Amino acid sequence: MSQKGITERIAGFAVGADGADFPENAKAVARGSMLDWSAVMLAGLDEPVSRMVRQMVGEDGGTPEASVFGLDGKRPARAAALANGAASHALDYDDTHFAYVGHPSVAVLPAALAIAEKKRASGADLLEAFLVGVETACRVGGFLGSSHYQHGFHQTATSGSFGATAAAARLMGLSQEQTRHALGLAATRASGLKSQFGTMGKPFHAGIAAANGVEAATLASFGFISRPDGIECEQGFAETHVGAANRDALADLGRTFRFENVSYKYHACCHGTHAVLEALALIGNEPDFDAGAVSGVTIHVNPRWLRVCDIAEPETGLEAKFSYTLTAAMALAGVDTAALATFDDAICQRPDLVRLRDMVTVVGDDAITDTAAAVQVQLASGAMLAGGFDLDDAVPLAVQQDKLRAKAASLVGDAVADGLWRIISELENRPAAELVEALGGRRR
Amino acid sequence: MSQKGITERIAGFAVGADGADFPENAKAVARGSMLDWSAVMLAGLDEPVSRMVRQMVGEDGGTPEASVFGLDGKRPARAAALANGAASHALDYDDTHFAYVGHPSVAVLPAALAIAEKKRASGADLLEAFLVGVETACRVGGFLGSSHYQHGFHQTATSGSFGATAAAARLMGLSQEQTRHALGLAATRASGLKSQFGTMGKPFHAGIAAANGVEAATLASFGFISRPDGIECEQGFAETHVGAANRDALADLGRTFRFENVSYKYHACCHGTHAVLEALALIGNEPDFDAGAVSGVTIHVNPRWLRVCDIAEPETGLEAKFSYTLTAAMALAGVDTAALATFDDAICQRPDLVRLRDMVTVVGDDAITDTAAAVQVQLASGAMLAGGFDLDDAVPLAVQQDKLRAKAASLVGDAVADGLWRIISELENRPAAELVEALGGRRR
Repeated sequence: MSQKGITERIAGFAVGADGADFPENAKAVARGSMLDWSAVMLAGLDEPVSRMVRQMVGEDGGTPEASVFGLDGKRPARAAALANGAASHALDYDDTHFAYVGHPSVAVLPAALAIAEKKRASGADLLEAFLVGVETACRVGGFLGSSHYQHGFHQTATSGSFGATAAAARLMGLSQEQTRHALGLAATRASGLKSQFGTMGKPFHAGIAAANGVEAATLASFGFISRPDGIECEQGFAETHVGAANRDALADLGRTFRFENVSYKYHACCHGTHAVLEALALIGNEPDFDAGAVSGVTIHVNPRWLRVCDIAEPETGLEAKFSYTLTAAMALAGVDTAALATFDDAICQRPDLVRLRDMVTVVGDDAITDTAAAVQVQLASGAMLAGGFDLDDAVPLAVQQDKLRAKAASLVGDAVADGLWRIISELENRPAAELVEALGGRRR
Repeated sequence: MSQKGITERIAGFAVGADGADFPENAKAVARGSMLDWSAVMLAGLDEPVSRMVRQMVGEDGGTPEASVFGLDGKRPARAAALANGAASHALDYDDTHFAYVGHPSVAVLPAALAIAEKKRASGADLLEAFLVGVETACRVGGFLGSSHYQHGFHQTATSGSFGATAAAARLMGLSQEQTRHALGLAATRASGLKSQFGTMGKPFHAGIAAANGVEAATLASFGFISRPDGIECEQGFAETHVGAANRDALADLGRTFRFENVSYKYHACCHGTHAVLEALALIGNEPDFDAGAVSGVTIHVNPRWLRVCDIAEPETGLEAKFSYTLTAAMALAGVDTAALATFDDAICQRPDLVRLRDMVTVVGDDAITDTAAAVQVQLASGAMLAGGFDLDDAVPLAVQQDKLRAKAASLVGDAVADGLWRIISELENRPAAELVEALGGRRR
């Protein structure tokens, strides 16, 4: 790290970096995350937390600046960021960055999208601001480190606030000095506790972070004076929030994008089942595979997951999400595990799945990491099919985008998913408003 | 502390306590704080931080629920709480509770007033909710303790969020269960760092806390589920924010009101000068005292203040605020040190004050606490007048209210101050809207 403090470095990157220098692969990953965010946000609009936050901003009303998806008309950008952020994390089905342990897109994109719509920004500006924002979240998250997370802070909310601020500052055309004050304001506004996991507080955190970003950038644009070194100063955000102050977190800032390693969820069930489902899908998707010919299945996973998602005979849709046996049966039978609607009570009774389910043996195996799985499928013919998968393995971009498009189609239907991708894949040649309209925002 | 956790205890107090049981003295102190808050808020409306937050909520617009003082028309209650909270702490001239190290009224009253206006509450309900809110801030502040403050958190913002939530929950008629979730939501939303002191971030904290309270209570009224033990649970607010979890902080909750010990600032200059000014005013206010007959002044203060407010020959209004010599001269000459306008550059050159100023000797004295001062005034006649004052000494209620009325008159003029006091002193027989109207809120 140079002599400059992190707040100054991030501010310089946020509003000073030339988007023309951003690597094409980083922009491509950002486009994939935009599609994924769009689909999980739309699919999450009817969740209780989404409805409640939308009710609040709906009753508050206000100047029509940005779309609150699920409401008619527009609302102030700050309100749109709050509501759209909460909705997009409601299903907990959005992207994850394991290195900083947070969900970058749900905190940043709602802020960027709201300001882009308000400011009638180009799609290119939206994409660059989004990328700057998620990269800021990853870098600040890395600076805070695992000590921050282990102490009980939810990085999606805390680092996410800085990411949302960076994105908003760039789209609003703030100076570097104003951006430092915006980040300093985010330092005293950022909050969010892991102890809210399992409650509506968790998805609300994404909205909080996004709204914090819009608010901080807006006030800074008026000349608001905060701490221009608010992250790293004595008793600043990092010190008070048990940040590790990792010195290498800013290495190559602006040249490399750590966000490129972001991960996606492709199944609407517990993350602990995903490696198994990927491994079995590789077998089940073979053209000549016949689930009716299976006579036994053995899956090996890290033992920590046995306490999380090993319900042997699930009876409800919710229990099904935490069942290795039934989700394994689904993967072999070609059931769409990306679709939310798959996980209902009825599927727990489907005879062909129950038959497969009862053939599954789950083995805890310390030799397997918690992102991996090994599977063996025994056929009645006596043949044995074996495979494995590690969620940590890099996925080729084209494969990733195909999987994201398939997931989006499962969530919102082929037509909507295709329409969204058509715009996002060409976002740099279109106005940001086209994405807003495709997401259902209406002009008033 | 009983077996119940603090979140449950506070919720029970906030919405379950019968206002008829509240001690008359506590209500009288609350009325004094309401007058003081009103005057410092009105006097702070033109400060830059007030204007900027008002600009943001003004541009956001929205449903006319509650008055944003300084703006025409009403705005959503959440926005009014944010703007009015920031304005009321802009001058840093509001009440202080030393036991919990925070400013209770600026976090709580903006929330209570906004909800009371929205809900057309009675003045009695407003007064009770305000008292419940400030008492909650004091109790949660005591629970978190000095470890929380020393670590870098600003109690006005953090404990204030819980106080604002309690007040809003009571005025909105939430159930105890809903109030627990509202407090749990405040636990993941509360923020505010001492490292912002000296910036606009500090006054903004009061607005943040007030708005957090309105938001948390509003969402909880829709059924929002958070942690019903969010303050004390594992990795909850207290544990993550270095709270001491003081077990005695809830003793006699609902029967005694720690808020009764709140302190006020009566001089528009550095807090370090206040004990001196009170001691000298006791001498200077004697009917036959003649400042022209003074030939020497010696003041004894705790040595820590010599690094803070001992500018011997101030040349600007700002320097005058940090000058023992000149403020002492003002007190002897009968200058109104409560008025903001007193502290301009011109007063530094007033000949009678400069003559007195140059006679003042300031002595650091370890035997004197940092809330006290001892003074000696030498007269040309050879007589010596001696006195002292300790800001920690209890002030009789009638004296306190007279001083608060005089301060309010200095800040907003006799007519406005009298009008405010007429309403506040009889608040239990009037609708809350009358106070709002007296503060300049207009009906739309």
